[in-house]
Parts: sequence; structure tokens; C-alpha cells
Amino acid sequence: MNKRKIISFIGKIILIEAVLMIPALLVAFIYGDGDASAFLTTIIPCAIIGFLLSRVKQSEERMSSRDGYFIVATAWIVISVIGAIPLYLGGGFPTYINALFEMVSGFTTTGASILAEPADLGHGIIFWRSFSHWIGGMGVLVFVLMVMPMENDNSMHLVRAEVPGPTAGKLVPRMRTTSMILYGIYTAMTVILIVLLWVGGMPAFDSFCIAFGTAGTGGFAVNAAGIGGYASAYIEIVIGIFMLLFGVNFNLYHLLLLGKAKEVLKSEEAKVYLGIVALSTVAIAVNVLNQTQSIGKSFRDAFFQVSSIITTTGFATVDYNYWPEFSKHILLLLMVIGACAGSTGGGMKISRVIIVVKSMFVEIKQIIAPKAVVNVRLDKKPVDKQTLSSTRIYVTTYMLLICLFTVLLSLDGLDLTTNFTAVLACFNNIGPGLGAVGPAANFSVYSDPAQLLLSAAMLTGRLEIFPMFLLFAKSAHE
Amino acid sequence: MNKRKIISFIGKIILIEAVLMIPALLVAFIYGDGDASAFLTTIIPCAIIGFLLSRVKQSEERMSSRDGYFIVATAWIVISVIGAIPLYLGGGFPTYINALFEMVSGFTTTGASILAEPADLGHGIIFWRSFSHWIGGMGVLVFVLMVMPMENDNSMHLVRAEVPGPTAGKLVPRMRTTSMILYGIYTAMTVILIVLLWVGGMPAFDSFCIAFGTAGTGGFAVNAAGIGGYASAYIEIVIGIFMLLFGVNFNLYHLLLLGKAKEVLKSEEAKVYLGIVALSTVAIAVNVLNQTQSIGKSFRDAFFQVSSIITTTGFATVDYNYWPEFSKHILLLLMVIGACAGSTGGGMKISRVIIVVKSMFVEIKQIIAPKAVVNVRLDKKPVDKQTLSSTRIYVTTYMLLICLFTVLLSLDGLDLTTNFTAVLACFNNIGPGLGAVGPAANFSVYSDPAQLLLSAAMLTGRLEIFPMFLLFAKSAHE
Repeated sequence: MNKRKIISFIGKIILIEAVLMIPALLVAFIYGDGDASAFLTTIIPCAIIGFLLSRVKQSEERMSSRDGYFIVATAWIVISVIGAIPLYLGGGFPTYINALFEMVSGFTTTGASILAEPADLGHGIIFWRSFSHWIGGMGVLVFVLMVMPMENDNSMHLVRAEVPGPTAGKLVPRMRTTSMILYGIYTAMTVILIVLLWVGGMPAFDSFCIAFGTAGTGGFAVNAAGIGGYASAYIEIVIGIFMLLFGVNFNLYHLLLLGKAKEVLKSEEAKVYLGIVALSTVAIAVNVLNQTQSIGKSFRDAFFQVSSIITTTGFATVDYNYWPEFSKHILLLLMVIGACAGSTGGGMKISRVIIVVKSMFVEIKQIIAPKAVVNVRLDKKPVDKQTLSSTRIYVTTYMLLICLFTVLLSLDGLDLTTNFTAVLACFNNIGPGLGAVGPAANFSVYSDPAQLLLSAAMLTGRLEIFPMFLLFAKSAHE
Repeated sequence: MNKRKIISFIGKIILIEAVLMIPALLVAFIYGDGDASAFLTTIIPCAIIGFLLSRVKQSEERMSSRDGYFIVATAWIVISVIGAIPLYLGGGFPTYINALFEMVSGFTTTGASILAEPADLGHGIIFWRSFSHWIGGMGVLVFVLMVMPMENDNSMHLVRAEVPGPTAGKLVPRMRTTSMILYGIYTAMTVILIVLLWVGGMPAFDSFCIAFGTAGTGGFAVNAAGIGGYASAYIEIVIGIFMLLFGVNFNLYHLLLLGKAKEVLKSEEAKVYLGIVALSTVAIAVNVLNQTQSIGKSFRDAFFQVSSIITTTGFATVDYNYWPEFSKHILLLLMVIGACAGSTGGGMKISRVIIVVKSMFVEIKQIIAPKAVVNVRLDKKPVDKQTLSSTRIYVTTYMLLICLFTVLLSLDGLDLTTNFTAVLACFNNIGPGLGAVGPAANFSVYSDPAQLLLSAAMLTGRLEIFPMFLLFAKSAHE
């Protein structure tokens, strides 16, 4: 372990987080809700400590891939622990654990809340909660790479550990310039969304917060009424479409900018993604027709909810807890599947599902013709063995952890539907589940230890399991 | 496809099933409940048709592994379809689909029933239901291999498709003699159990039926009161221990007979199996202490239920639907895990779980040291790549199918806990689930189409997925 390098890097992260809190501080000053002091008390010490740590003299040693994973896991814990301080100081959260849960939920773009009414908070705090979605969406570390010069070799290790999806190789931003382009696209799309919402009659403050929540596929709203509260079909449709757009692999937008539209059209993952959205929307729209009494409303509700769940955003315009069982079960399936690799969305990722399903058919072909060489192909190219093996291990580990977390959570005494969907919703960074953690409820039903467990689930899910594991593997081996 | 060979083989199976119905016919005669005619009407035509088909002249061609899978899948469907006829004719089942569900549940050793009170049936029918567990436990095809001479090469393909577990290679009965030894052990253990139950005060008829259900890890009881109805701690403990014994890989008993006790003690799967049973028993016993008010009763209930669920038998002495959530969640975990490979039990199998968990740690080690060669080991020997890959594909496919079946089942309108545990209980050949299909309830809550779907789940689970798939792959390729 390259301890000095790690300490210096964590220092930089703390420094940057202090800077990232400044917009929230300004909002707090503008609205004067009294939450400015909570930010000041956090920003000043963080800036000092971060600056000092970042100056720790580094060794010449190169960073190992293990160091990369270690930094990523530590960084996400540190930013959450620090980010929760203004939430706790600003009031509104009974315990610091509650505030930490909310902040982890923010940075991991989960959007699960323990608040019955977020509007009771100060505007600065609400802004910071939503802004954390935006920061977390593209990855804190990718952001750091953009603003801090680093050797390419090191940054690669970090990015591989942080950016979601099985095919890290080619698709991932390899260099500072690429990550700047991706953040540029992300920012531009967010700005367009803010304008579209504001033009549609949403208050300016809400437009910012909701756009952050949409872009990061987070899901924090500014009040308990959520997106349904704006009672505007226009706003629902705009957000529905933009959630879907933020769930696409950002490299496709990059390719579009480079004029390679043909390559974009070939993307198997994008096609499957849109296919699943279309199919699920139709199935749910037909299924809920009895309840809505209008085909238009059925399709609007179904599309919004499908888009919100598959992208793991978690916004809700209706309480789908009251939908027919079939529709709820489809949503549950979408929760597991998740968005495209390399997007801001969570879940298992479409490309992993494709690989797993194709593996199944390859196995069948192999039984029919044991000596034939059959490959799993993605975008018409064979998937290499390393990726195949990692994907299968990922999916099975994913399943094991879901089971384990659900059983541990049951110690709180809630029912299976609630526990299982709470774990799915946290692990896949969605937000609301079903039952007692449905879209009209919140996570305050869980005790503080259960909230810590769910925070661990959110971080483990966001970082795709293995970086978090390495934190524990470390102490055992050194 | 070697059609003549397949037809002739299916003919033999039908013929054998007719013979296997004779004990039930005798029981029907003895008790004179009027169900003898139902058996006679089935046995006579089956014997004739089976005999004729079995005489179809075979080609010299060798059987391919695909033919083997095809025969196994077809055979299991055929025996269920035929076996359900006396159930339907004997009355007690409103539709033939109900009877088919019950019979599939019998042969696959699931033990899920649609009956509120099995004791309303004739004694012959009750006997046939329970006897189907015993036949299905060791595998219908293994039985056929024992009584019918066949070339070794062909039988290998059949056995590999039917006997559960990831490590078919060495552990599987390769030859007629081995399968005779295994069936011998199975029969001897069953006889011992019958005597022990009868000595303990259970009626002779019940002793037979309950022993069949225990040996096959099936779970059909003879009346609605189930095992709890005998109100005997002795009987509960005897059955609890024997369920556990039938959940062990039978090759270990074979090794014991050969005097290789040392090898048995080295079996990692058996150790993990007993470890999980011990841990779960203690956890549940402590958790239910409030409800039972007695440490002895707590441990007895916990041990019986843990043994019943992990071996996928499905007997119940208490309605665990009323246990605390934590205990119910542990049972759910045990449902998924299942018994040892090569036992009569179902589920994912302990050895697969071991491989999957070890794969996870290997992946972590690989991240720490990307260039090191790290192997997954079982019983201290590295697991070959083919088994690793198949196991991971199996587990991911398993997960996909569970999701798919649950969503389809939700069209019936029941809640998530019921649907999810019904699918788990059928797929893993357990029997009762939670919620509306709990141990005190039955599967008649589902519609006929849903029962067909669950029958498919039972067969797919019993044959470990791929043979059933090949039935459909066939028509597409030829």
C-alpha cells in the first residue's frame, strides 16, 4: 500500500468537497433559512484539513490497482461522512446516522430518504442533498481526475474501480480529456433540463434540484409531493425522457459528437435497454388501465415509472404500491436490471444481463454440440473470457449479498416484501421500494443500525461490490 | 436425434411405471376405499402401450448427450402425466391440472399440495402420492438403469442429466452396479426409518408414507395435521435426523461401506452442510424462544424446520408463518441453498454455493494481485474451468428463471411474498412457502394456468434447468 499517496489523494478529495459545498452555502445565504452556519462550520475546517493532507509528500512509487480500489472505497466513505455534517448541524435529522444515511443516499444517487417532508429543511440543505446526486452521478473520482493533474497510469486504476459496468476496457474514459468531455456532455444536458423545467413553470430553485436528481439518476425531490406535485404532464414527460437519456452509456453521446452515429445505432445494449422500456411500459399501461380510466394517463404513468425505476432514479408520480401485483412485479424486475453500463444509473446493468442471458443459450448449445466452440457475443464481437468470468462472479456475488443483507435487515422485524425491496432499492441505488418503504413512505421505519447496513448496501452497490470488500481484505493481509 | 431409441426408452419407462403402481393397487384393495378401479384403469393400458413401444426396433446408432437430456426431460413429463391419471380418476381433485400439479410435485419430491385435507383421499391414492416421492428421490432414470441392461456409454448421458449437482464427473454412479449399490443404501435407510417410526407408535400405513416422503425429501404427509399431528417428540427427532441424512451426498455412504471413512470426513460439502444446519438451528431457536417459552421446544422446532427446509423436504411441525421475521428470512435463505449434490434433496446445492462463495474471494485476490494464479478449490483440489463456468451459468440462470416465474405468477394477483416463495418452493422442490402458500395453507390459491407454470418450475428445478430447455431447443433446430 502506498500510504502517502492515498493520504494525499484523500486530502484533495476533502478539499474539493469543501469547494463543492460553496454553491449550497450561497443558496443558504440567499434564502436566509439559517442553515448557512451549518455549511460554514463544515467548509472551513475541511478546507484546512484537506489542504494540509494533500500536501503530504508523496513517494515515487507507482500506484497499484489495489491502491486504486482502496482510494475509491475510502473516498466515498469520507465524502459521505463529511457531507452529512451540515445536514446534521442544520437540524431536521434526529441522529447523525440519519443524516449519514441521507448523504450516502445522495452521493450514491439512491435517493432513499428518511424524511417525511424534505421541504421542512433549509433551502441550502435541500440544494446540497440534490447537488450530491449530481456529483455522485458521474463519479466523484472522475471529477477529481478532471480538475487535478495525474499520471494516466494511476487514473486508469481509479476510473476502473469507480465507473460502473462490466466492459471497463475500451468504453471507459481513459484520460483527463475524455473525462472532461463526458463531464461537459453531462453538464450541458443538465443545463438543458433545468431550462426546460423552468420554462414549463417549475420554480427556479426546484428546477435546479430536480434536474440534479434526474441527471444523477438520484431521485431526491424538494418536497413530499415529489414530481406528481407539479401536476403537469409536460414536466412529467420531460423528466421521463431525460431520466431515460441519463441511463444511456455516455460514450454513445461522445460518439455522436464525433459524428459516429452509425456506431451508436449498432449498440446492442442501447437497443435492449429501449426494448425493455417499451415492453414494460406497454405491459404496465394495459395492466393499470382499470385504475386510471384513461389510456393517455395509463401510458404516461407507466412510462414515467418504468423510466424512473430502470434508470434507478426513483422519482414517483403515483404510489405504485397500489398498482396491480403484475405491474409491481415488473417494476421489481426492472429494479434488478438497472440502466446501461457507463451511465449515471445503477443496478446490475443491461450489458451484464445480456451477457448472462447469452451465456445461458451458449450453455444449451454446448450441451447439444459438446465439441463446438460457441462464444458469447456483444455488439457482434466475442466477449473475452476474463469479462465473462467476472460478470458471472459479479452476478452471483450480487445475489448472495442481496440475500445476506435481506436476512440481516429482518432483525428489525419488518416483512419480507419491505426488507427485500429495501435492499434491492438501496443496493441498486434506486430509492423507494415496495411495502413499508414504498414511494409514499420513507426509510425512517428502519432503526439506526439498519440504516447503517443500508448505507453499506448503497455504497457497495454504487461501487459494484469489490472496492468495498477490499477495505476489509486489507487489514487481513497487511 | 435417435428417435427409435427414444421411443423405445419411453416405452420402457411407461411399462415400469405400470409395475410401480401395483403396490398402490394392493393397498387400495386392502383398504377397499373404492380407488382400486382408478389404478386398474391406468395400469392395464399403460402396460400394453409401454410394452409395445419398448419393442420398437432400435437402430445401431449411438446415443448422443443431447438424446440423453431429451429422454430425461420427456420421461419426467410422461411419468407425471400418466401418474396423475389415477389421482384424477380416484376423485378428490377438481381438475386434471390439479392432479397433474400434485403428481409433478410428487415425482419431483416437492411436496406442494393443492389439497386442504389429503386424508379425504383413498388409501391407495395417498400411498401412490407418497411412493412417487420415493421413486423420484433417487431419480426415475437411475432406477430404470438398474433394472434394464444398457451400454455404459448411453447410461452415462442419462445419469449426468438426471443426478443433481455440479460435479457430475467422479461422484456420479457410472455403472449399473454403482446405481444398484446406491439404491440399496437408499432402500435400507428407508426400511430402517419405517421400523423406527412404527416402533415409535406411528400407524403402519403412515410409517410407510412418511418414510417415503422423508427418504425422497418430498414432504407429502397423510393428513392436514402433518408431522405435528403425531404429537411425539420422538417421531419429530427421528424424522428430523433422517431428513438430514437423506440430504447428504449418497456417495459418502458408499465410501463408508467401502471402509473409506477418512475420505468421508474430508468432504467439504458435508462439513459446510452440517455447519449451516447447526448455525441456523441456534439462530432460530434463540429467535423463537419468546413464542415457545421452552428452550427444549425451541431447539426441537428449529432443528426440525431447518432440517426440513435445507433438505427441501418441506414437512412442518409448526406454522412458521407466525415465526419472527428473522427466522422466516433464514428459512428463505435455506430454501435457496438446498441440500448436498448427489443427495435426494433439491435447491441450488451446497457445493454450488461453496463454489460461488469461493469464486467471490478468488476475484478479490485477483484484484489485489492481478498476475497471481488463484484457483477455486473444493476438497483441496482445484475445480476445473468447465465446472466453474457451468456453475456460474447455472446460478445466474437460476436467478433469471426465479425472477421470470415470479413475474408471470403475479398475473394471478397474489402478493410478492406468496409468489416469490411459491416459485422458490417449487423450483427448489421444497413444498410449502410463506404467506398464502405457507405450511398451514396449500397451492389451491393458484389458478390452473398458474399451477401448470409451477409444475414447469418443479420439473425445471428437479432436472437442474437445462434438460427442460432442450425440449424447446429441439424443435427450433431440427
